Amino acid sequence: MENKNEKSELEMQRHSLAHIMALAVMQIYPQAKFAIGPDIDNGFYYDIDFFDQKIGDSDLVEIEKKMKHIVKQNLKFTRSEMNIDEAISKFEKSDDVYKVDILKELKSEGEEIVSFYQLGDFIDLCRGPHIESSGKIQLGSFKLDKLAGAYWRGDEKNKMLTRIYGLSFSTKEELDNYVKMVEEAKKRDHRKLGQELDLFCFSDLVGPGLPLFTPKGMIIIDELRHHIESVCRSYGFQKVMTPHLAKIDLYELSGHAKKFSDELFHVSSAKGHQMVMKPVQCPHQTQIYASRTRSYRDLPIRYMESEKQYRAEKTGEVGGLSRVYAITVEDGHTFCTIDQVKDEIKRMVSIIKEFYCALGLWDNHWVSLSVRDYANPDKYIGDSEDWDVCEAMLQEVSDEMDLKAKRQEGEAALYGPKLDFMFRDSIGKEIQIPTVQVDFATPKRFNLSYTDKDGQDKPPVMVHRAILGSYERFLALLIEHFAGAFPVWLSPVQVKILSVGEKHIDHCQKTREEFMKRGIRVELDINNETMGNKIRKATIEKVPYVLVIGDKEMEENIFAVRKRGGNDTEIFSSDDFFEMISKEIKERK
Amino acid sequence: MENKNEKSELEMQRHSLAHIMALAVMQIYPQAKFAIGPDIDNGFYYDIDFFDQKIGDSDLVEIEKKMKHIVKQNLKFTRSEMNIDEAISKFEKSDDVYKVDILKELKSEGEEIVSFYQLGDFIDLCRGPHIESSGKIQLGSFKLDKLAGAYWRGDEKNKMLTRIYGLSFSTKEELDNYVKMVEEAKKRDHRKLGQELDLFCFSDLVGPGLPLFTPKGMIIIDELRHHIESVCRSYGFQKVMTPHLAKIDLYELSGHAKKFSDELFHVSSAKGHQMVMKPVQCPHQTQIYASRTRSYRDLPIRYMESEKQYRAEKTGEVGGLSRVYAITVEDGHTFCTIDQVKDEIKRMVSIIKEFYCALGLWDNHWVSLSVRDYANPDKYIGDSEDWDVCEAMLQEVSDEMDLKAKRQEGEAALYGPKLDFMFRDSIGKEIQIPTVQVDFATPKRFNLSYTDKDGQDKPPVMVHRAILGSYERFLALLIEHFAGAFPVWLSPVQVKILSVGEKHIDHCQKTREEFMKRGIRVELDINNETMGNKIRKATIEKVPYVLVIGDKEMEENIFAVRKRGGNDTEIFSSDDFFEMISKEIKERK
Repeated sequence: MENKNEKSELEMQRHSLAHIMALAVMQIYPQAKFAIGPDIDNGFYYDIDFFDQKIGDSDLVEIEKKMKHIVKQNLKFTRSEMNIDEAISKFEKSDDVYKVDILKELKSEGEEIVSFYQLGDFIDLCRGPHIESSGKIQLGSFKLDKLAGAYWRGDEKNKMLTRIYGLSFSTKEELDNYVKMVEEAKKRDHRKLGQELDLFCFSDLVGPGLPLFTPKGMIIIDELRHHIESVCRSYGFQKVMTPHLAKIDLYELSGHAKKFSDELFHVSSAKGHQMVMKPVQCPHQTQIYASRTRSYRDLPIRYMESEKQYRAEKTGEVGGLSRVYAITVEDGHTFCTIDQVKDEIKRMVSIIKEFYCALGLWDNHWVSLSVRDYANPDKYIGDSEDWDVCEAMLQEVSDEMDLKAKRQEGEAALYGPKLDFMFRDSIGKEIQIPTVQVDFATPKRFNLSYTDKDGQDKPPVMVHRAILGSYERFLALLIEHFAGAFPVWLSPVQVKILSVGEKHIDHCQKTREEFMKRGIRVELDINNETMGNKIRKATIEKVPYVLVIGDKEMEENIFAVRKRGGNDTEIFSSDDFFEMISKEIKERK
Repeated sequence: MENKNEKSELEMQRHSLAHIMALAVMQIYPQAKFAIGPDIDNGFYYDIDFFDQKIGDSDLVEIEKKMKHIVKQNLKFTRSEMNIDEAISKFEKSDDVYKVDILKELKSEGEEIVSFYQLGDFIDLCRGPHIESSGKIQLGSFKLDKLAGAYWRGDEKNKMLTRIYGLSFSTKEELDNYVKMVEEAKKRDHRKLGQELDLFCFSDLVGPGLPLFTPKGMIIIDELRHHIESVCRSYGFQKVMTPHLAKIDLYELSGHAKKFSDELFHVSSAKGHQMVMKPVQCPHQTQIYASRTRSYRDLPIRYMESEKQYRAEKTGEVGGLSRVYAITVEDGHTFCTIDQVKDEIKRMVSIIKEFYCALGLWDNHWVSLSVRDYANPDKYIGDSEDWDVCEAMLQEVSDEMDLKAKRQEGEAALYGPKLDFMFRDSIGKEIQIPTVQVDFATPKRFNLSYTDKDGQDKPPVMVHRAILGSYERFLALLIEHFAGAFPVWLSPVQVKILSVGEKHIDHCQKTREEFMKRGIRVELDINNETMGNKIRKATIEKVPYVLVIGDKEMEENIFAVRKRGGNDTEIFSSDDFFEMISKEIKERK
């Protein structure tokens, strides 16, 4: 783990740019008062009190111009120290109420000496560190991004300040790439595309955070479910279904009642029922294991299910499919002996690999292997020897399967070590979903056991795995990854047939039947519109194959096929096309 | 509709048997005081205060003997009337506190004259009617059934009385058949078989009314789901998925908040959320319809889904799969123009027919066609002409599809007419699940519309349909209908392979792979036990095909097959058997 006080070169540059922006603002708006200006992911911001002055996008252009000038001037950052009382009276004199507020808080925490950084005429209370001088920053590697309102100290009872966001990267090229990615991400935003492609919707009567899946969205979810279940089944997982409700006792025993206390939905009725909605699936699955006597001969037992779990997210934070109240989780657990853990991990990694390969995401993966903090072995649950064995198994699987996992000490869960998988989607956004986690604690909490060869009752080890996480978030991710242009097997409409004229309608309908018979999802556009219009609509709908049927196609029983993304028309005999598309669907290309 | 005051011959006989039992009890226990003794489904009961006397099963034998004697005596039932005050003082004199209580209540309701029926020495306050004399009852057509405790007036603050239940039918044969059916039903009880066959389980930590489906139970549910979805899809239904939660606003608008006020589960969180769990699916589906502008060209729109809905059943009443807090409902709705209603009804009836035929239940069906109470046309929602049209459509479909539906006036829902389908399962229990209901009200409540050819916005008609109802209750029904011996396509394990000796294990495992490759669900029993034991286990598990593999089977690559229910072994070449069972599964025989 990185030391939080040590800043990387880029973080120092970002933080220094906050000061450079403050100096520029001060030069243009001498009355402005400054609150805080940290570095953040991708850049920096500063919260500024402009009083009655309204700041707009055109002002940002002016401020950025001034910042570039400061960079060219190559001004030095110089550090100094001061007694805290002296500092307070200095800022009181200049009416810098926010700095005074911060200093008083620092004083109440026992600070005696504080540090300052000066850049040109701008002196700021600051821990640093900074870059040596403003000239170290490459021109073009930063830009101002946007304006927002922000309450002082995040408290809505306080004054609303103006927050100016800036972007900053090591080079101009990196900045340009980032800006391009953000623009592309906006175009691909699943909320926008989901509406355009009619994949899901929301209703004011139902409420926010509760998406309704339309037929087209549901086709994608069902295809994913069918695919993942059949992959998992081939690796020995058996599907179960557990209820969405439980007595709170279940989660008090599992520890989740405490962990999710604020996120729990409580259920009651006029008849006096008191239950909770499940925040996770694992405890329910332990109860199926516990419903029978188990012998070593029965192990490993592998359960999977795709049911909803519920978390009371903050009302203001729900939106799209990424933050919702209920997620349909594809969840799985193996109960096994410790000797079987390695094979189970291998199975689960194989499933992850097979699933993400099919979506073209595997090539860009990396893996973290989270092990104990060996300096604090006592905080973990389970025998030290069992941990040693399982950590070694994870390492062996990583080596044998060439995962090149990065070992992270201290990142294990309290109940066991784990593997986490990260990918990048087509525009470079990071995806972290799949995980394989060894768990010594849960079986013991629930008093699970199996009778071993020696006749002794022993607790099994539980191995958790997530492959696609939740269908809601995964659909959001796929929409953005494919920009709505799903591979044929996932496309809600795989083929669209356009009729040239009135006399081709019959033949179009017969052709549709041919596709339906083969289980291919097909739509017809026999409206009385221009071909240009029809093609435009099919393009917006991102249908993979568009077939235009006119005289020639009808007479010769051929298809004039326009492939998504291209402008050319290719001619196929109907049989060749059926064979080609069926193969493409079957192979999930 | 039958007049509630008119009793059938059988109901009169059952009620008369309550009096006959009372007379018998009075003769044996002169101190006994009588409360109420009505006729019920299948028989009668009387609630009696025996004071300190304990009544056991052997006493029932004695009472029944006495009853038979009374029947043989052919005593007359004679009716008389009395002023209510006179009646009160008569019963006060004889310390008949329960009759006094009833009389006082009748008086407070304004009754002035009450009637009595006398049988031998037993005079009872009674509205009647009765049979003429006890000798009208066939000996052997009744018997005493069981004892139970019952609080006076059902209030646990009152005294607990002894309830004696009796069975009564028109003939001895009918009684015998009923007794046999009850015994058979006990053997088939889904709670017992569900546990034995490991189809579902309960957990004290999760709580009552919340079944957990094990891998084997889930196979049946998934096969049913797959089958019903593919049938419905072939009739144009598209799958959607709607959330399990909603603002209460949704149900206030639909009217369900009022209808289910006591059955609603309310959801809250520490963060201040207030929602309800959905008691029905329809309102959610209207919101998908409402999410887009619809034109007459888009109709009919047909949605189906298989999601859970929740009802706060009384804690004491939940049990098995028949009464649970959450049911997974296979629900569907069509939104269409009034001209399309007939075709939609026909489609839905076709789906019901196809589905129940596959389960061998269709042959024994009857249908009720529920129409308005024409004497009170104002209590229904919707235009009278629309009702006329839709009732006529239902009648036409019934005629065209030869349903022979029985027209029931006044049984329609407030929002539209409907068809209800009834079946009998293999032991004669009545099943009422499928329904097709026309609904004029819901689209209007939700302000749904489509743009018609003339450019006008009009409300669509909604047609509701249920095919299998809920998966939970349907599984209970199937377990009992098949007594756990499911048809091959629904069997969790379709084939079980038993090894004769150690040296056959390898070949058994290879054979298993062959079945798995063909998608046939197979289990292996290679334990070192006697063949008798292995066969006994497979028989208890009700596996359709058991394959025994020894020397001969291994050498000749044949299967020695024991079919469920038989004791013979039939020899198949492996290829013939694969073909036979695959066909059986595919055709859902």
